[in-house]
Amino acid sequence: MKNLLDNISNPEDLRKLNPEQLPQLAKELRSFIIDIVSTKEGHLGASLGVVELTIALHYLFDTPNDLLVWDVGHQAYGHKILTGRKDVFHTNRQFEGIAGFPSRKESEFDAFGVGHSSTSISAALGMAIASNLKGNTEKHHIAIIGDASIASGMAFEALNHAGVSKANLLIILNDNAIGIDPSVGALKEYLTKVKTDKKLAAQNNIIKALNFDYSGPIDGHNLEKVLSELKRLKSVKGPKFLHVITTKGKGLQKAEEDQVTYHAPGKFDKISGERIKKEESEYSKYQDVFGQTIVELAKQNDKIVAITPAMLTGSSLKLMLKEFPNRTFDVGIAEQHAVTLAAGMATQGLIPFCNIYSTFLQRAYDQVIHDVALQNLPVIFCLDRAGLVGEDGATHHGVFDIAFLRCIPNLIIFAPRNEIELRNILYTAQLGLKNPIAIRYPRGYGNIIDWKKPFQNIEIGKGICLKEGKSIAVLSVGTIAKNVEEAILLSEKKKEIAHYDLRFIKPLDEKLLEEIFEHHQKIITIEDGVTQGGFGSSILEFAAQKNYKNKINILGIPDTFIEHGNVMELQKKIGLDIKNLEKIFSKT
Amino acid sequence: MKNLLDNISNPEDLRKLNPEQLPQLAKELRSFIIDIVSTKEGHLGASLGVVELTIALHYLFDTPNDLLVWDVGHQAYGHKILTGRKDVFHTNRQFEGIAGFPSRKESEFDAFGVGHSSTSISAALGMAIASNLKGNTEKHHIAIIGDASIASGMAFEALNHAGVSKANLLIILNDNAIGIDPSVGALKEYLTKVKTDKKLAAQNNIIKALNFDYSGPIDGHNLEKVLSELKRLKSVKGPKFLHVITTKGKGLQKAEEDQVTYHAPGKFDKISGERIKKEESEYSKYQDVFGQTIVELAKQNDKIVAITPAMLTGSSLKLMLKEFPNRTFDVGIAEQHAVTLAAGMATQGLIPFCNIYSTFLQRAYDQVIHDVALQNLPVIFCLDRAGLVGEDGATHHGVFDIAFLRCIPNLIIFAPRNEIELRNILYTAQLGLKNPIAIRYPRGYGNIIDWKKPFQNIEIGKGICLKEGKSIAVLSVGTIAKNVEEAILLSEKKKEIAHYDLRFIKPLDEKLLEEIFEHHQKIITIEDGVTQGGFGSSILEFAAQKNYKNKINILGIPDTFIEHGNVMELQKKIGLDIKNLEKIFSKT
Repeated sequence: MKNLLDNISNPEDLRKLNPEQLPQLAKELRSFIIDIVSTKEGHLGASLGVVELTIALHYLFDTPNDLLVWDVGHQAYGHKILTGRKDVFHTNRQFEGIAGFPSRKESEFDAFGVGHSSTSISAALGMAIASNLKGNTEKHHIAIIGDASIASGMAFEALNHAGVSKANLLIILNDNAIGIDPSVGALKEYLTKVKTDKKLAAQNNIIKALNFDYSGPIDGHNLEKVLSELKRLKSVKGPKFLHVITTKGKGLQKAEEDQVTYHAPGKFDKISGERIKKEESEYSKYQDVFGQTIVELAKQNDKIVAITPAMLTGSSLKLMLKEFPNRTFDVGIAEQHAVTLAAGMATQGLIPFCNIYSTFLQRAYDQVIHDVALQNLPVIFCLDRAGLVGEDGATHHGVFDIAFLRCIPNLIIFAPRNEIELRNILYTAQLGLKNPIAIRYPRGYGNIIDWKKPFQNIEIGKGICLKEGKSIAVLSVGTIAKNVEEAILLSEKKKEIAHYDLRFIKPLDEKLLEEIFEHHQKIITIEDGVTQGGFGSSILEFAAQKNYKNKINILGIPDTFIEHGNVMELQKKIGLDIKNLEKIFSKT
Repeated sequence: MKNLLDNISNPEDLRKLNPEQLPQLAKELRSFIIDIVSTKEGHLGASLGVVELTIALHYLFDTPNDLLVWDVGHQAYGHKILTGRKDVFHTNRQFEGIAGFPSRKESEFDAFGVGHSSTSISAALGMAIASNLKGNTEKHHIAIIGDASIASGMAFEALNHAGVSKANLLIILNDNAIGIDPSVGALKEYLTKVKTDKKLAAQNNIIKALNFDYSGPIDGHNLEKVLSELKRLKSVKGPKFLHVITTKGKGLQKAEEDQVTYHAPGKFDKISGERIKKEESEYSKYQDVFGQTIVELAKQNDKIVAITPAMLTGSSLKLMLKEFPNRTFDVGIAEQHAVTLAAGMATQGLIPFCNIYSTFLQRAYDQVIHDVALQNLPVIFCLDRAGLVGEDGATHHGVFDIAFLRCIPNLIIFAPRNEIELRNILYTAQLGLKNPIAIRYPRGYGNIIDWKKPFQNIEIGKGICLKEGKSIAVLSVGTIAKNVEEAILLSEKKKEIAHYDLRFIKPLDEKLLEEIFEHHQKIITIEDGVTQGGFGSSILEFAAQKNYKNKINILGIPDTFIEHGNVMELQKKIGLDIKNLEKIFSKT
């Protein structure tokens, strides 16, 4: 059979095909995705699951005039390939290549930039209301959202509003019973019942109760059914909801069988699906240090509980779940609930470790302030993936946390320099803190092989001197200390430069700072967070208060959104790489 | 009849009554609330609506061992009066008096501090899970939540989790079809149907679909029914849900008839309910300046739309709703959705004014970053009630916004010094900004009578000099400028002191700052926000970058949660009052 995809660079080309050719195109599109992701890495399972849906939508609707909003967006590879980005798809998620998520900057077919979950219904409803106000009744506004994402509070808020709007909105529920890990919660159980119980689907189900024209569930891999149902829905006005059942990883047996691993499997053999093992690192990921350590601690302290909003695997809390299923809570994509649940637990004397990616804590900011810090409840926030995260890019970098947490009274903020420090602060936190604490650590590998040392208590608010020096003091927090250390070693001013790890961004070690300011003329602060209001800014506040006149140079993430690429490339771009630090040190 | 309430200072006393005496107690409790709120002011309607429920809960459950979590908490006056605070209830919401909301600090009967909505289910579920883990199967954990609050996403997240938990959790839906303004949304319409359609209540309704043992709806003012249903539910294990219908303002005719006004009516005649008119201020509230101005602008610019998450009256967007019902959107307590809805509208060329109280924007922090700023969509955020809000206290002060917004790339931040500046920035913002903007302004009255002047465009990023001086420059943002002006007038160093209104917290007016730093030895910054990472901190960053050595003194809200009281009392407490500023200026 001839290769259809070769002749398609945009939806106009697609629409020239006969409907009978679409299953063949689906096959080709799957192969294309598999071919490239198998060598270039990226999200796999989600995009394989929506191949038919993607083709059907672009075939029937007048994109980009009709607006598609993909929730989260890691399922949008097929969409990207069919909308002008086939030839650059091999640069997916790479530095200066295309983004792993839809992005308005990248294409007019990407109606809304995504990355975090559960935004699609709100965004598409906003677009639909705009069309109503403009008197455009023909335009279609479509949100495609997974069953894990629709259970998040924000999506419910949007459903609640959309149901009483007259907006020309189509919500497509891509129900595959899994997010990154299997979906959880009462809504998921209910949707599962709807799938198997035709009567429940037909009767006044939850979605109908919210005023939607509900249809489905239909098989999302049956192109004929998907096309005919979408065609019917095109002429239905007002808010409507199509329930589509798909299989994550569809078309690659291994990916269907092990959906968690094949969410983003790394390199793999495109025929067998067998993953290609990376050269085993001798180091551990910070995630594993966290996961293994919390299990160790939980064995000793039965007050410890752990909470994750849908990141069991990513956070390594799956290790804790395995050992202590009753004390480990995956609450789904529900950061707000996760934090206040932890607060409730803390009132009863439990010690909750609430593990949330730095970027997703932005979703629970009010709860940190209002439910935890204001009541001074000793919740332990473990902020995974703090700092630059690499290929996931601008939506996922955890670079704002220092700035947005530092202004909250009562909260302790700690950034471990290495695996041992992470381990020891986890130990310290569960000994019985009087305050909540946020512990921020990065994605990926550390660099200590033998990190599993006996626990040591860390004195709250105490920084340390890593290297003495004469005139210049470099103050760092977190794992960026590694770059600093190496840059100092390379610097011609090596002897001049002292290096301090403040460790606690809050409370600051004022005694140590006084010593530093008194014995060094020049101060350089470094953090892998934004400089506006960040750690460096807190050092400026200290200096102003104490009336120190030392020259202070603040290094960190500049005031702009940082795109995707590997962490070293990104560090280089913003000048936090070893070479540039060395240059700065030498010029100071 | 003898006065029952006189002999009740806590639930133990209450439990000595016969059930037949409870309706009499309800009458007395209502009178007590009305008596005090009529002269001391406060929230009225919500507490009157739950008098029977409050009595029944404390009568049947073993509080404080059984745990009650009141959502929002402005309905908890009866609870406070019955739990040891009858004699101090007249200090409600006053400086150094009891708080207007439940507070763990204040009483062991307040199981969880509240103020913001929709936290109760998460908190109570956390408590219930803790009891399970401790093997305590007898303890009861009860969340009492209104129909406006349960429609917020966070509450849905908690329901979704609770439904699959085995927690001994009782959720009581206090359904009165109103928050502060009438409730909105598809869920509210559905609940209304349930109320009138017994079959719908009995069948597989939304709540049952989420795995709850649903009962009701029952009349929440019928003590007998409430008692018997609660008694039954005491022996039901697992997550259960009682739907109670109440009337907000119950027992005071005026309050029942005008529920919006009597949410917090100010002083009123306790017999007739007639409101006692305050001496009419010659000035306008900032809220009215906003409300009237946006109507004026919307008449000229048909791209303008306005969004509020359930604060139609409080924000004065009711004025816009009246004139432009199709362009005004009350989305309910749904800040997350409100922001992303605005982002969606902005993609289609509308100009959305998204009015959210500063403290509630904390609920949509991620959406501001991820959906608005990252895509650089020109949404206009109107942050009402920024700074100290007064009697609502620690949960409601809008003091973190400068710090948490300043770190977001692309965002413009403006604080008007007075009504005219607010008016002009609203005008400027709708002319076609390239960036999103946050405009923060306080609760309450301004001090310009004749503020309705012809519109003037404000140059983005431009500060102004209000008064020249020799050696000291005071830099303020926002309405705190008034205190600064008066303090300068009083100061013996009057001639020394210059006063600048930077207006834009971001971008800073660097040219003006250079002039200021070059011509003044000493700099004082003042803001009604937290000093950690706030406006003053941005001035320090500027000075460090430009290597200025001027002495800089940062004034603002200290690093602690500020309690309730009127704004002047609070300013005095933290040293931002005129007298203390004068003292600081004179000492500088």
